[in-house]
Amino acid sequence: MMRPKLAFAMSPEKTRHVFNAALLSRLSACCDVVATSPLQNLDSAESRAILADTEVLVTGWGCPMLSPAILRTASKLRLIAHAAGTVKFTVDPSAYARGIRVTHAAEANAVPVAEFTLAAILFANKRIFEFRDLYQADTSRRSSHRLMDENVGNFGRTIGLVGASRIGRKVAALLQHFDFEVLLYDPFVQPGDPVTAGADLVDLDTLMARADVVSIHAPSLPNNRAMIGPRQLELMQDGATLINTARGALVDEAALLRELRSGRIQAVIDVTDPEIPPPDSLFFSLPNVFLTPHIAGAIGTERGRLGLMAVEEVERFVRGDTLLYEVEPALLERLA
Amino acid sequence: MMRPKLAFAMSPEKTRHVFNAALLSRLSACCDVVATSPLQNLDSAESRAILADTEVLVTGWGCPMLSPAILRTASKLRLIAHAAGTVKFTVDPSAYARGIRVTHAAEANAVPVAEFTLAAILFANKRIFEFRDLYQADTSRRSSHRLMDENVGNFGRTIGLVGASRIGRKVAALLQHFDFEVLLYDPFVQPGDPVTAGADLVDLDTLMARADVVSIHAPSLPNNRAMIGPRQLELMQDGATLINTARGALVDEAALLRELRSGRIQAVIDVTDPEIPPPDSLFFSLPNVFLTPHIAGAIGTERGRLGLMAVEEVERFVRGDTLLYEVEPALLERLA
Repeated sequence: MMRPKLAFAMSPEKTRHVFNAALLSRLSACCDVVATSPLQNLDSAESRAILADTEVLVTGWGCPMLSPAILRTASKLRLIAHAAGTVKFTVDPSAYARGIRVTHAAEANAVPVAEFTLAAILFANKRIFEFRDLYQADTSRRSSHRLMDENVGNFGRTIGLVGASRIGRKVAALLQHFDFEVLLYDPFVQPGDPVTAGADLVDLDTLMARADVVSIHAPSLPNNRAMIGPRQLELMQDGATLINTARGALVDEAALLRELRSGRIQAVIDVTDPEIPPPDSLFFSLPNVFLTPHIAGAIGTERGRLGLMAVEEVERFVRGDTLLYEVEPALLERLA
Repeated sequence: MMRPKLAFAMSPEKTRHVFNAALLSRLSACCDVVATSPLQNLDSAESRAILADTEVLVTGWGCPMLSPAILRTASKLRLIAHAAGTVKFTVDPSAYARGIRVTHAAEANAVPVAEFTLAAILFANKRIFEFRDLYQADTSRRSSHRLMDENVGNFGRTIGLVGASRIGRKVAALLQHFDFEVLLYDPFVQPGDPVTAGADLVDLDTLMARADVVSIHAPSLPNNRAMIGPRQLELMQDGATLINTARGALVDEAALLRELRSGRIQAVIDVTDPEIPPPDSLFFSLPNVFLTPHIAGAIGTERGRLGLMAVEEVERFVRGDTLLYEVEPALLERLA
């Protein structure tokens, strides 16, 4: 078996939770590691000498853009294995003309967001935060018993997913293990798409009106800014929950706060626009808002899944196996 | 196909969320319903007349004990379909001598508890409540970024399940869809039991010491009172979480509150002993305790799953199909 020469390009500080010792030794087992410490400045003479020799480059958070000039230096490069979510700002498309293959760990990045969303859905349907607050305020449990008789619970409820992104699809897949009706709005999904086996394609208004929980999984693009606006929010049922783990700009936040202030709906919000709301924002204080600091994605040990995915791709490459997460040129164009 | 005569025995008030109109019409479609309103006092002359004719009795919450005397009155009875979790206090074992078959909906009761537990595990591993509190207290996110670098997240963590009960097994099954190591303590589980395919059998001390989240799913019996005592709690790792959706008596609550007051561990507590703690209990006020009013089980729409399971069993019985949830005499003895 060939033993390609391997180097790293990333920020050691940002990626210290991505590659543990076990993962690094798996790379040494199948490749000749030409530089043990990751490259950060790719223009230095030292970096250029290493790159000139490198056949497999493992990249990660904090990796500078692999510009056409850098790619020319790395004349033996055959694989870029990116241990992070999006490769768009790391790899110049000219890599493909050179025959360099590219893989990414976007799947690994999607997993924790989908898991967070699942937990938020299961808690939201049962109105768990409200039960906790009612119990604290009224230890007789009289008010909690009233809530038990309302339209709460995880049986026969309707979940609306906005966006069949990588994360939206993972959420849809997880929801198959529960007794839900799943609705999906995504203007780009065609009938027959595998996701439609477990989710009914509907228009956005239908989704907003019918779902007990609406969860947003769309990419943030100029043309879908505030796609969840006043009209969509007004369509939501009393007692329904909006979950946003995608981007704050997808929601008209002033309109959302109006609905939330009325107490009519609840929200689980991991992302806002701006990224941190002003300290006096109602997002921090409303009892029917559960606000978290953009941590649905990979945190703590979950960052190791990114490293594992990159290492497994390198191992497949060395064995000559099919890569599972190869980024084709057309996909690179479309990536958010 | 035969059309057996069917009656109901339960409290209409307690079961109004268990049987909706659609379920009742499915029963009418396959049986002759001899009394449209459920029997409550089974000793009245009217009830005895109905029971004398009844072949299928659908029971539920608030059903009086079907004593030997009542079973003698119901001389044509062939099936008791119990739309609730435990049939032990509803059916006298003498029913079996009469050839009466018994089914229950304990599986349906276990589902919501397992789902609540899964959501609590996914949130506990990510320390979601702590992130929320840190963000509220420090909107700069500096403290949340510190927590992100600790041993948090849902990748490669260890979940310890105490008790391979119906609920414990459902939790173990759900956990197979995630990247966890699952430990199980249950002195009655034999090697080769299907649950061991997805969980490593260990002793209780090993489980307490290794698990990032410990979730209790044991029945409450005289001999396991306070089985999670001071020694077990001290074995837990810093930052670990204890989840109790089973019974308060399984835990030494004074010892638990000592550990919680130190801030060393967290807890998600749905059950306590007594059932409602005194209003000044630290369970209500500690920031690292998430206390809910015994609502992990079937609430709201989830009660309809109990009715559905009973109706499907009646339909199978009428068609002559194998019953899926039949309670054999030996099981009736063992039920909690």
